[in-house]
Amino acid sequence: MRAARYYGKEDIRIEEVDEQKCGAGQIRIAPAYVGICGTDLHEYLGGPTFAPTTPHPVTHDTIPITLGHEFSGTVIELGKDVTSFSIGQHIVVQPTISCGICEACTAGIENVCCNGGFIGLSGGGGGLSDSVVVPEGAVLALPNNIPLDIGALVEPLSVAWHAISAAPLMSDSVVLVLGGGPIGLAIVQCLVALNTKQIILSEVSKSRQAFAKAFGAHHVIDPLACDTVVVAKELSGRDGPDIVFDCAGMPASLKTACTTVRARGTVVNVAIWEKEVPFNPNMLVFREAKYTAVLGYQRKDVQAVIDYLAAGKLNPAKMITSKIKLEDLVEGGIKALIRDKESHVKILVEVGGMSRVDSAAH
Amino acid sequence: MRAARYYGKEDIRIEEVDEQKCGAGQIRIAPAYVGICGTDLHEYLGGPTFAPTTPHPVTHDTIPITLGHEFSGTVIELGKDVTSFSIGQHIVVQPTISCGICEACTAGIENVCCNGGFIGLSGGGGGLSDSVVVPEGAVLALPNNIPLDIGALVEPLSVAWHAISAAPLMSDSVVLVLGGGPIGLAIVQCLVALNTKQIILSEVSKSRQAFAKAFGAHHVIDPLACDTVVVAKELSGRDGPDIVFDCAGMPASLKTACTTVRARGTVVNVAIWEKEVPFNPNMLVFREAKYTAVLGYQRKDVQAVIDYLAAGKLNPAKMITSKIKLEDLVEGGIKALIRDKESHVKILVEVGGMSRVDSAAH
Ligand SMILES: NC(=O)c1ccc[n+]([C@@H]2O[C@H](COP(=O)([O-])OP(=O)(O)OC[C@H]3O[C@@H](n4cnc5c(N)ncnc54)[C@H](O)[C@@H]3O)[C@@H](O)[C@H]2O)c1
Ligand SMILES: NC(=O)c1ccc[n+]([C@@H]2O[C@H](COP(=O)([O-])OP(=O)(O)OC[C@H]3O[C@@H](n4cnc5c(N)ncnc54)[C@H](O)[C@@H]3O)[C@@H](O)[C@H]2O)c1
Ligand SMILES: [Zn+2]
Ligand SMILES: [Zn+2]
Ligand SMILES: [Zn+2]
Ligand SMILES: [Zn+2]
Repeated sequence: MRAARYYGKEDIRIEEVDEQKCGAGQIRIAPAYVGICGTDLHEYLGGPTFAPTTPHPVTHDTIPITLGHEFSGTVIELGKDVTSFSIGQHIVVQPTISCGICEACTAGIENVCCNGGFIGLSGGGGGLSDSVVVPEGAVLALPNNIPLDIGALVEPLSVAWHAISAAPLMSDSVVLVLGGGPIGLAIVQCLVALNTKQIILSEVSKSRQAFAKAFGAHHVIDPLACDTVVVAKELSGRDGPDIVFDCAGMPASLKTACTTVRARGTVVNVAIWEKEVPFNPNMLVFREAKYTAVLGYQRKDVQAVIDYLAAGKLNPAKMITSKIKLEDLVEGGIKALIRDKESHVKILVEVGGMSRVDSAAH
Repeated sequence: MRAARYYGKEDIRIEEVDEQKCGAGQIRIAPAYVGICGTDLHEYLGGPTFAPTTPHPVTHDTIPITLGHEFSGTVIELGKDVTSFSIGQHIVVQPTISCGICEACTAGIENVCCNGGFIGLSGGGGGLSDSVVVPEGAVLALPNNIPLDIGALVEPLSVAWHAISAAPLMSDSVVLVLGGGPIGLAIVQCLVALNTKQIILSEVSKSRQAFAKAFGAHHVIDPLACDTVVVAKELSGRDGPDIVFDCAGMPASLKTACTTVRARGTVVNVAIWEKEVPFNPNMLVFREAKYTAVLGYQRKDVQAVIDYLAAGKLNPAKMITSKIKLEDLVEGGIKALIRDKESHVKILVEVGGMSRVDSAAH
């Protein structure tokens, strides 16, 4: 079968590999749509970072590994003892890999497992292939009224949902989102779905500012044209926003987040950082503000996103700015995003899991 | 009357000044004992920082101002309409100055008032003088079984109490305290009073390590002799301490705090920082840890400390490492602390408020 294999920096190959075995408690998925995300770009441009160069503690794989961690698909084989799913069913995969035995796992926060990883980044197969075998527990049913391409957006929306769950969101909260990339825009959508009173987004790119407006941000700030701190405080109608999400991950956004948030407010950092940045904790001291950070999501976040999609309360279709074929992954996907990140939100790779099961089912 | 007046960097003068008027709702205090703290040293060595060089928004004073914000004393005059106190009564002063009208004040968190300050730092008089007039609301009764010198320790203990109230302390919490200065040691004592299961303190100075042991820390780590991260994680018997207090305020302690705390744990920053330091938010991301910061205290914290002192659950007498006369403030107090900070915890200035009321009462 075909698979997009990551060998290292600037080396991704579409090649033929053997299918994995589908053992007890496992499910074989034919991936349908797979989102390309910033993490994939990071691995391509500067990795391996997540991709294991020594055997991963859980998957035992090292590079080359198969990419693709944001995906929907169709069930095409059930391992022994799998009873919750049926052949032909549409699903999404929660790609979290965890060891099950460390303290975080024991405490039920496997998203911060110290041996953790992701299907599609840490070995054990990935969505960018004709089939992938995953544990039953990693699979969630996709209701019939959610198309498979929308299913591929469940993962970034779950990052957003989880980030919001770490914040003390109230019915009258004023929220500032820094950065309008896929994650910032997903947070805006989830905040809209949760009827947040006031959503302010700050983003440098004009096209992404337009996306934020389209997704329901009440105010959009251009940090190059004005001072986000001043404008956001003013718009908040109070001492500052109650909650600030940092989805930009820049020295400037860290400073903006910590100086704009109201006294006793909460900054939620969603960004992954490349290196140390300058920070003065006094920014938080003089307002007794909290700074918290989130990683990934838990099953309850993924399920909540699916439920909101099914209920029509999340409508993320506009996030899909392009659909490409697996063979075009590097040129039409990864390099297109590197060249022109700003006019894209999500590029989906159409792997074809839908048509495969159609033929398999006949 | 005598007062210790701060004129600027390295310029503190004991001089004669006029007494303030004692108006309606105000109380005149004869300060008895006044603690010298790191903030005073900072003002002396590198200020003015807190001391106002333009009129303070609440006190309207500029330097020179009277020092002394950690003090006990005796009531010697009652302004019109003051009914809660009587002449001769022993009291402590909560030195928080707030504007009463800003959003923080309105929300009841006047310790982060954006126009705030401190009696003894921001004008409006201070403890290092023969008398000081304060609002009735800033005064708390000192029960008869708490000596006046111990009363002067209520302020640093309140900083500690407030810091602990910002942490999710549970009966089985493992807590790491970084820095064993007056504040770190006050936190250790409050944690002991609250029956904290495990208290680990890390401190470079040998004499302060000994103080920590004496105050009941279960384990004391010397960060110069071993790796605090490794040892504290091991001692915790879990993934790391549940709560870390940063009372050192150094680049090293910031890093230690954020990498030692357990997944989903809480770092409480108590330190005031001198400048920006290097920080990688990923330290918090990969454990979904919280970083929170505290400033000052609220009346409920001060009252709790007084109650615990009265009940014999806090016994901070050993913190007093020296008592000096007002005339000796600079040489025997401030310069002694600068020269040999480590062998001191608190130097108290004996202003004499006790004897004054004795004669006034006869
Ligand atoms: N915590 C997690 O589990 C998790 C999961 C996925 C992604 N992430 C991280 O979240 C962050 C956002 O992801 P993304 O895919 O949206 O990234 P992205 O790079 O596409 O988006 C970041 C956006 O921030 C904007 N920006 C930069 N500086 C700014 C500033 N000072 N003010 C306002 N906007 C500014 C950029 O123009 C860009 O549009 C990344 O750091 C990513 O690694 C974290
Ligand atoms: N938030 C507030 O309201 C408030 C109130 C009072 C004081 N403070 C601040 O709290 C901090 C502590 O006050 P203090 O009076 O105890 O100060 P201090 O300077 O006397 O004590 C700090 C201690 O930390 C130790 N230390 C330095 N680096 C260390 C490291 N890497 N690991 C372990 N220990 C280390 C030093 O040896 C010293 O004993 C200061 O920053 C002070 O400004 C804050
Ligand atoms: Zn992703
Ligand atoms: Zn684990
Ligand atoms: Zn002080
Ligand atoms: Zn105020």
